[in-house]
Amino acid sequence: MILTLKAHAADKDIKLVVNKIKELGFQAHISKGAVKTVIGVVGEKASTTRAIFETLAAVEAVTPISKPYKLCSREFKKENSVVKIDNKVSIGGKKITVIAGPCSVESRERMIDVAKRVKNSGAGCLRGGAFKPRTSPYSFQGLGEEGLKYLAEAKKITGLPIVTEIMSPNLLELIGSYADVLQIGARNMQNYDLLKEVGSFNKPVLLKRGFSATVEELLMSAEYIMSKGNYNVILCERGIRTYETSTRFTLDLNAVPVIKHLSHLPVIVDPSHGVGVRAYIPSMCLAAIAAGADGLIVEVHSKPQEALCDGSQSLLPEQFIKMMKELKGVSAAVGRSL
Amino acid sequence: MILTLKAHAADKDIKLVVNKIKELGFQAHISKGAVKTVIGVVGEKASTTRAIFETLAAVEAVTPISKPYKLCSREFKKENSVVKIDNKVSIGGKKITVIAGPCSVESRERMIDVAKRVKNSGAGCLRGGAFKPRTSPYSFQGLGEEGLKYLAEAKKITGLPIVTEIMSPNLLELIGSYADVLQIGARNMQNYDLLKEVGSFNKPVLLKRGFSATVEELLMSAEYIMSKGNYNVILCERGIRTYETSTRFTLDLNAVPVIKHLSHLPVIVDPSHGVGVRAYIPSMCLAAIAAGADGLIVEVHSKPQEALCDGSQSLLPEQFIKMMKELKGVSAAVGRSL
Amino acid sequence: MILTLKAHAADKDIKLVVNKIKELGFQAHISKGAVKTVIGVVGEKASTTRAIFETLAAVEAVTPISKPYKLCSREFKKENSVVKIDNKVSIGGKKITVIAGPCSVESRERMIDVAKRVKNSGAGCLRGGAFKPRTSPYSFQGLGEEGLKYLAEAKKITGLPIVTEIMSPNLLELIGSYADVLQIGARNMQNYDLLKEVGSFNKPVLLKRGFSATVEELLMSAEYIMSKGNYNVILCERGIRTYETSTRFTLDLNAVPVIKHLSHLPVIVDPSHGVGVRAYIPSMCLAAIAAGADGLIVEVHSKPQEALCDGSQSLLPEQFIKMMKELKGVSAAVGRSL
Amino acid sequence: MILTLKAHAADKDIKLVVNKIKELGFQAHISKGAVKTVIGVVGEKASTTRAIFETLAAVEAVTPISKPYKLCSREFKKENSVVKIDNKVSIGGKKITVIAGPCSVESRERMIDVAKRVKNSGAGCLRGGAFKPRTSPYSFQGLGEEGLKYLAEAKKITGLPIVTEIMSPNLLELIGSYADVLQIGARNMQNYDLLKEVGSFNKPVLLKRGFSATVEELLMSAEYIMSKGNYNVILCERGIRTYETSTRFTLDLNAVPVIKHLSHLPVIVDPSHGVGVRAYIPSMCLAAIAAGADGLIVEVHSKPQEALCDGSQSLLPEQFIKMMKELKGVSAAVGRSL
Repeated sequence: MILTLKAHAADKDIKLVVNKIKELGFQAHISKGAVKTVIGVVGEKASTTRAIFETLAAVEAVTPISKPYKLCSREFKKENSVVKIDNKVSIGGKKITVIAGPCSVESRERMIDVAKRVKNSGAGCLRGGAFKPRTSPYSFQGLGEEGLKYLAEAKKITGLPIVTEIMSPNLLELIGSYADVLQIGARNMQNYDLLKEVGSFNKPVLLKRGFSATVEELLMSAEYIMSKGNYNVILCERGIRTYETSTRFTLDLNAVPVIKHLSHLPVIVDPSHGVGVRAYIPSMCLAAIAAGADGLIVEVHSKPQEALCDGSQSLLPEQFIKMMKELKGVSAAVGRSL
Repeated sequence: MILTLKAHAADKDIKLVVNKIKELGFQAHISKGAVKTVIGVVGEKASTTRAIFETLAAVEAVTPISKPYKLCSREFKKENSVVKIDNKVSIGGKKITVIAGPCSVESRERMIDVAKRVKNSGAGCLRGGAFKPRTSPYSFQGLGEEGLKYLAEAKKITGLPIVTEIMSPNLLELIGSYADVLQIGARNMQNYDLLKEVGSFNKPVLLKRGFSATVEELLMSAEYIMSKGNYNVILCERGIRTYETSTRFTLDLNAVPVIKHLSHLPVIVDPSHGVGVRAYIPSMCLAAIAAGADGLIVEVHSKPQEALCDGSQSLLPEQFIKMMKELKGVSAAVGRSL
Repeated sequence: MILTLKAHAADKDIKLVVNKIKELGFQAHISKGAVKTVIGVVGEKASTTRAIFETLAAVEAVTPISKPYKLCSREFKKENSVVKIDNKVSIGGKKITVIAGPCSVESRERMIDVAKRVKNSGAGCLRGGAFKPRTSPYSFQGLGEEGLKYLAEAKKITGLPIVTEIMSPNLLELIGSYADVLQIGARNMQNYDLLKEVGSFNKPVLLKRGFSATVEELLMSAEYIMSKGNYNVILCERGIRTYETSTRFTLDLNAVPVIKHLSHLPVIVDPSHGVGVRAYIPSMCLAAIAAGADGLIVEVHSKPQEALCDGSQSLLPEQFIKMMKELKGVSAAVGRSL
Repeated sequence: MILTLKAHAADKDIKLVVNKIKELGFQAHISKGAVKTVIGVVGEKASTTRAIFETLAAVEAVTPISKPYKLCSREFKKENSVVKIDNKVSIGGKKITVIAGPCSVESRERMIDVAKRVKNSGAGCLRGGAFKPRTSPYSFQGLGEEGLKYLAEAKKITGLPIVTEIMSPNLLELIGSYADVLQIGARNMQNYDLLKEVGSFNKPVLLKRGFSATVEELLMSAEYIMSKGNYNVILCERGIRTYETSTRFTLDLNAVPVIKHLSHLPVIVDPSHGVGVRAYIPSMCLAAIAAGADGLIVEVHSKPQEALCDGSQSLLPEQFIKMMKELKGVSAAVGRSL
């Protein structure tokens, strides 16, 4: 249920409304616009109390939200949300942001090398996994804190904010002290404990779609984070499971216009994991932006044949440069800039 | 197996090679380039006869084709194939071609009205079903020959070549006398009888991917057509079946770079059937061309609420105009023209 | 819409009702029970004429059918349908029927050998493809009429009725003169032309579910056949496409109770194509009958390593014998006999 | 890599081998048989040290394991594993075990009522969720510790061991003090942190297949648990995501023979979540056991219309009684007892 307050409602009036909401056992989520303030009332059976709110002086209108997700829905907020990263980069505005880097942090030298290269080619953020979710317990699991330190060094040199994955609430403090964006991987999209924890942490979250999650379920998982107070959520399409075997997953670009229609949150696309075959990735990068995505997250590796993980889906630096050039044109064609 | 003939091989030398191929019980498929001629030798166990061909004077090299599809593979032909339609329009070259029109032909007036509108907006061909494959035997099955006549009238007025579906070999002569392109629908992608028949008919074929066919199976079905001598095959991605329900099917744009990599045949995309929700279709049109497709096939209807079939997935004429404008920019950004 | 006639309605009363139905432009489908006769009225907008039928003297009640399929729905007919094959075998009654044989007819000797073996192990019908739908145009396409003749010989010796596939309306007369059951393969489940043709032919039809068809679409395809007057339709679950790769397809046994709930038609299961790995097939045969299926269609081959098609999914004769023994117990446990 | 020791190897010889394994940086997993002891050597590149182990006196043979999963593979252990629960019930032996109860613990009275009913009908364990993974943050999330206490009371009265879900490592001590089996839900199948934690805890684990996980990935997740020393893992098929909508998920019974072939671990089936429609569940229970499963986990609720979660997929007590009777026959037919 959304309460639209009268234009220029005073802070004390807003407080009165919020108190009423809490008194009734619900949560209040405030979204302040230039002229009007909007408050989301969430909680089981919130809708049954509609009449109570309609009588409050500061409330202009009460609107039920028809979707199971509330705070991330377009019904709650009409304008696109823009998520700021480290006060340097934004995702969700006119400018397209490209996050690039190796699948996993492998060594200090390589990390810094790739960071410089992607910075020079126009990337806005640096990616790299220090704690890796691997199907096999016997595979390389990432460098851990050592990897985070290399990321920090690369950031110091290039200025690129860091996007890195968190898999366990127990590592939130550690990873949160290095990362500028906390990435929740596809396998953890419905790890509700983890979602709640990052929802209470003060860093933007990059939430990847589970590889058999519906768009609605992705939005419900975003709602878990937002209902804890962290509204800085970036959604990411990264491929779904189908019967087709010529690509590693089936990158579902349809999800881009669907999410844009249903939600105000920014959406980026990960063609590296979605497609999984180097030769096809540049085309899908261009297609993602043409479909309306706000950015990309792409794996780039200077020596993919030596990569400890996912080498065959990493772009070579020269492929990345070429793709970024073409992306400039496609971005402009759809009214965006790069 | 591919026989590459020596540069400027004489016609009689080519004939000698072809005779040898036939004598051994195989089929010969000739592809003449500016300098060199290439002959595909197809048939079960053709590869066992390699040595015989290597001894022929006109033969420069014998190369096995590693894929199960031969004639449609990039191994057989390196350059992109361009399919000419009615000597007016080409698909597969630099220029993007958009095929547009209603799902089914419904009346003379509406058909002509939509044809004029899409022509004015830059469409290169006209689509419209006269014989409709419907899930229910009790649904509208199309106007039949009457529908073909309205298509012919619309062509006369606008000059747009006609793309229309054929579901049965028995209708080949009738439909073939009106259509400029014979469309094989998704449900018939593995109707081998039909494939063989259109393979022996002298009109381009638009072959849609079955909604649970792999890309390889699509290529195998193209091979059925080409093995009968008709090389004018246009492939079409139109959405595959997945668990996701926010779109009617999951339009698989990944198939575009995959097919371009594996085959020389032109590829177009049908976002109308693939996505099935009007609001999402323009974005996916742009994305398809950014991904490398050679064209689009799109449903446009002036009164979709009155459509006898698939109204909710037809673009309104004004949406189509807007999309075509944006498409111009995207096409240019990827080195194509519209 | 279903018209339930009054008990013991006279033939001339039934005729009057049927004439009225036809006069209004609909089809009449009659199902005579021991006491009451039921008539299905089908055609677009049949439901709008309800009032007209309620006034007819012989009509006791008029009931709309809520499903898009009519004649195959449980609403139209409450009791299970039993399909008789060659006046020897029935599918859909208490007795479980097993159809067995090689994937394709390969030679006279082998066909007769396998026929004798499966007959001795308790099979009720013989399967074998003479015209084969193959993904590649260069693969073995079946022996054609020669194969039908070997099937006929095997039938003469063993008495087993013949189940064989038809892929084209043009072959209906030929194949129909040999086959006791016309099989429509998964790839042709929505080849509506073929469905209409076998719907007008006087032989039972075994309709396989397309590998990405929903149960509802399978029923709609059965409706195409039945709406032409042929009510002897046997449905067959044969595996659907999913992302799982440890089996060839994913045999969907859930479809068995679902179809039994929605339709009165008999259902059999094809674990050979559905699973595709010999070692797993016997377990799935037992499971199919436990799930409520009326029978099985299983590939058995005496020398699978020499098979021209699908050898790896054919049971060895000794595996078939063992499976049939266990099946006896499972059948009894669910109130059936073998 | 598996080291098969010589018959009746002495403990000190075993210790020598284990020390060598640790010295080289690998893990040793010991499986003692009646006559011979087998040691699994796991770790990255363990296979490169084969020659070293072949020279040890106590070692009879060294066998590489070809699969990516080691400890759960049939190659490592040929006989079926039997998991003991609370010293009362076993899963994986000749006897079929049925785990039954409500989806979530809702009240003391209802929990005890259902526990008594399922005990009387032959269930061997009690299920019930106290901490519930819900798609929406606004849905009922379970009673928490209060729910665990009701489960404990129901156990005290009926003697049925408790199976309940754990979603977070932080709750391991609490839930572990009540549960006899720790259930890992489908959404957490690849929550590697959680897997490692339960792998170090001394209670059997019921690991559900993720709804888009392959069988191989399920086994890899089991391997995560086993590699930490907890070998008491029960696998559970609970339905996968497909395009079919007549069931909630597609219960994949093929997974049963596949897992039995690849692994020695016991397998049970959850038709309640897999099918999701009450009417179809009993048939799939019977089919699961016919396919070779070692048990079932089924939702039973005395007033499903009042259930706080998943009511429409819970069996009524009388349906459960009827199903258990039929299950006796099916179990016997496949050489098992109930």
